[in-house]
Amino acid sequence: MSCVLTLNAGSSSIKFGVYNAAPEPDLLAVGLVEKLESATPHLVLHQGSDTTEHTLSEGGHDAAVIAILAAVTPVLAGRKVAAVGHRIVHGGPDHSGPARVTPEMLADLERYVPFAPLHQPHNLSAVRAAMVAFPDAVQVGCFDTAFHRGHPFVNDTFALPRRFYDKGVRRYGFHGLSYDFISGELDRIDPDDHHRRTIVCHLGNGASLCAIRGGRSVGSTMGFSALDGLPMGTRCGQIDPGVVLYLLDQEGMTSSEISGLLYKESGLKGMSGLSNDMRELLASDRAEAAQAVDYFVFRIRREIGAMAAVLGGLDTLVFCGGIGENAGEIRAKVCEGMDWLGILLDRTANETPFSQPGGVVSEGEVTVRVLRTDEERIIARAASAALE
Amino acid sequence: MSCVLTLNAGSSSIKFGVYNAAPEPDLLAVGLVEKLESATPHLVLHQGSDTTEHTLSEGGHDAAVIAILAAVTPVLAGRKVAAVGHRIVHGGPDHSGPARVTPEMLADLERYVPFAPLHQPHNLSAVRAAMVAFPDAVQVGCFDTAFHRGHPFVNDTFALPRRFYDKGVRRYGFHGLSYDFISGELDRIDPDDHHRRTIVCHLGNGASLCAIRGGRSVGSTMGFSALDGLPMGTRCGQIDPGVVLYLLDQEGMTSSEISGLLYKESGLKGMSGLSNDMRELLASDRAEAAQAVDYFVFRIRREIGAMAAVLGGLDTLVFCGGIGENAGEIRAKVCEGMDWLGILLDRTANETPFSQPGGVVSEGEVTVRVLRTDEERIIARAASAALE
Repeated sequence: MSCVLTLNAGSSSIKFGVYNAAPEPDLLAVGLVEKLESATPHLVLHQGSDTTEHTLSEGGHDAAVIAILAAVTPVLAGRKVAAVGHRIVHGGPDHSGPARVTPEMLADLERYVPFAPLHQPHNLSAVRAAMVAFPDAVQVGCFDTAFHRGHPFVNDTFALPRRFYDKGVRRYGFHGLSYDFISGELDRIDPDDHHRRTIVCHLGNGASLCAIRGGRSVGSTMGFSALDGLPMGTRCGQIDPGVVLYLLDQEGMTSSEISGLLYKESGLKGMSGLSNDMRELLASDRAEAAQAVDYFVFRIRREIGAMAAVLGGLDTLVFCGGIGENAGEIRAKVCEGMDWLGILLDRTANETPFSQPGGVVSEGEVTVRVLRTDEERIIARAASAALE
Repeated sequence: MSCVLTLNAGSSSIKFGVYNAAPEPDLLAVGLVEKLESATPHLVLHQGSDTTEHTLSEGGHDAAVIAILAAVTPVLAGRKVAAVGHRIVHGGPDHSGPARVTPEMLADLERYVPFAPLHQPHNLSAVRAAMVAFPDAVQVGCFDTAFHRGHPFVNDTFALPRRFYDKGVRRYGFHGLSYDFISGELDRIDPDDHHRRTIVCHLGNGASLCAIRGGRSVGSTMGFSALDGLPMGTRCGQIDPGVVLYLLDQEGMTSSEISGLLYKESGLKGMSGLSNDMRELLASDRAEAAQAVDYFVFRIRREIGAMAAVLGGLDTLVFCGGIGENAGEIRAKVCEGMDWLGILLDRTANETPFSQPGGVVSEGEVTVRVLRTDEERIIARAASAALE
């Protein structure tokens, strides 16, 4: 029996998982390499209840993937990694599902680096490193944009001259692996409810909402880049384009300074002046921390209204992601006074969502669920499927 | 008895009106100077059923205001212009109502030119010209931002570091004179319904939505500049800030080229490649025209959902502005399938909205009204009030 490896590479870390290859893969081990930008990255591997750690002697994605190969070799116990599945943030306009990544496709995916400059280069670095470290394995790309590619035109375009749309300036939407997983979970929990009007709130350090109907994404709060929509840990979310022009013309900032501000110094961190970590903000007694939380909640509520309009009403609301799964206080604030939309939270159930059948935490017309998302599993399934 | 003059100055035109000074002023004459950028601007004056026209021998705002003085002199019939009321797009964070414009305040209002570079300079030019042409009159500024200044903090800020908020980078909202007028009309039509949750759709060449409760604006789709929110005749509306960074970095555009694109070449005009005029688009059989209309409608529907979330539900929906008042087809498309929110249009009444009592064109739970807005009247009232 062969195995599949999943790689989820960011600028300074790579998450990885080892699964047996199967339509519904079993997780064998999971791990993380951190501090890739340093000369001594740190690798940790969890296998069952065992944890092993290493310090690497070289930084960068290439050395990290080689170290992952070494770390997972004992886990494989002689089996081979037949496929490596990669999270790739941007698949461009054409990929509406996972795809086998060839050197030619890799060159093609390079074209989307300007669309996602903070994510795409690192994703592609990991693919290149895996092609060297696992030369016999199938490389499979799983795109965060893919789940959204069926959006109707009105939800795929901006009001710019058509040549920009044709060049790929579109409302792609991201977090597609998470939404794909949650959509599958909903189908598993209640296969008859596939037609329901569903909003999924993926609330982590990155955050967005997705409107799903009949198992397909019909709208998302994210747009062209990973900046738009909800405020995030360090990203601004929705902002007037006039502010960007103001920063250029009046503050004399360069494009790269503005990019740094909007991607890394804004959001919860920028508003609070304290932290991008929701747990710290909720624990803080500073007014700025409370204001950052209030803004985060306000924008989610606002966009739930917007996504309900996209769907023509609402049947199911799902919370997932680090904040969505763990911050009951945020879920309660989001749902407060939303009875106009049929949302009524069961405050007791909301304290222990994972003890509730199907994660249901509501008592109103709209079913509110808390579900654990699993983007790696979507990648492992796609990598397994590529072997069939 | 004295009179008041209203001036609404854009880059290439000035609309003006003459009223008697009274708490509810009577309109005596109305007019327009066009083609200010040319050497031969054109002035037209309507007084009752009479129309007079002049060609000016000099361009610019100064000459236009002098020509307006000459044109209204016969209308005044010996009465004096005791106050001149000005539409000023940007009042900054402090003005939540009209204000007497002194030379000191004029200097202060200059600070907001960078916030509204396409409107504010022309507004202020007209104030300066009126100070010369009507040296004995009170100059009254009526700010498009004022009606929105009571927004709660979450609807006034972006998720940027606090120093930007302190510098004035806020979600101001515009079209406040129109919303102020409509709010007054609703109060006049049904004084008991002041607490109702109301969304006003100001749909003209500029377009935005305003969420009103208890006669006060609590939210708007417009933000820092006149670019944000709904797509407009030539303006893009909501757009991912990542697109602006892409235009800078990948398309090599300058800030001023991007500004030109987003303010003047986008929106209905950019999407259709045909026109910024809704009438032309509705009459066209080209696919791009239909797509531009569909996008305009889609974004309005989306933002109605968002504003309903801000209000915690919806009781009243008002259409106003050139498109809102005259394009029944757009109203019908916006309201289609919105029964999830309690909106059900009476399609017959929608054909002749101004024949309906209170402009009501609905038969559902939400009262949908079509009302004629009158920004000039708000200015005339403020100018009259300044004389008391």
